[in-house]
Amino acid sequence: MDREYFMKIALAEAKKAYKLGEIPVGAVVTKDNEVISKSYNKRETRKNAVFHAELDAIYQACEKLGGWRLWECELYVTLEPCPMCAGAIVNAKIPNVYFGAYDTKNGACGSALNVLNMPNNFRPKFEGGILESECSNLIKDFFKNLRK
Amino acid sequence: MDREYFMKIALAEAKKAYKLGEIPVGAVVTKDNEVISKSYNKRETRKNAVFHAELDAIYQACEKLGGWRLWECELYVTLEPCPMCAGAIVNAKIPNVYFGAYDTKNGACGSALNVLNMPNNFRPKFEGGILESECSNLIKDFFKNLRK
Repeated sequence: MDREYFMKIALAEAKKAYKLGEIPVGAVVTKDNEVISKSYNKRETRKNAVFHAELDAIYQACEKLGGWRLWECELYVTLEPCPMCAGAIVNAKIPNVYFGAYDTKNGACGSALNVLNMPNNFRPKFEGGILESECSNLIKDFFKNLRK
Repeated sequence: MDREYFMKIALAEAKKAYKLGEIPVGAVVTKDNEVISKSYNKRETRKNAVFHAELDAIYQACEKLGGWRLWECELYVTLEPCPMCAGAIVNAKIPNVYFGAYDTKNGACGSALNVLNMPNNFRPKFEGGILESECSNLIKDFFKNLRK
């Protein structure tokens, strides 16, 4: 299945966040080319620091699949994961991660630091820049409107 | 209030994990020298990768205090936080972190990498080695029994 196909689903999740006044980030966990779980950033709505799109999608995928090891899953997210979410990816042993926009300030897949290549830990493969401009423009647009 | 006082509460949480066959790690979030939330590692019991002691304690503290910013809180944990939990500490803006044992493999407060001093992000203060031998021996004892 095309990576852009699942990134578009993640983008649709990000747009739900946008409508709620949340920083628009969306995530999808897949297995065998099927969506297992999806979520969007709901930190403000849930008033809780852990409700990033990826962490919630990983939580849901574990619940759905009945185990903490997501060995056969892939994760798609519109923004480069932060350390918390990259750490959750490592802890859940998700082998493949695809993200859209890069995050130079807080990105933990190589931009600000790299949580996915710790020498003595599980090291997921990752690829950034999938539908990068759509993912990035959504966030830029959000902050432009916020400043108005 | 004494740091060891709260670390002992975190150790009591870790012992609950031990009894359930979980890697014994416990965490406490405090505010104004009172316990706001506490938790222990329940990854196996909950069959979910996100149920580390610190992440669950942070989740609970946000729920209890009704907001994602834990600016006036402190976190005590028996083992150096992993990247996921250190990232959650940064995301929740917890200014002070105290941990017991160091984790050379997965510790994200300086041992394997440092999530708490990202140049463009919130940088919590942290101190390791609080009741280090008690915290460390509990984990060593757990793995020694596991191998039997």
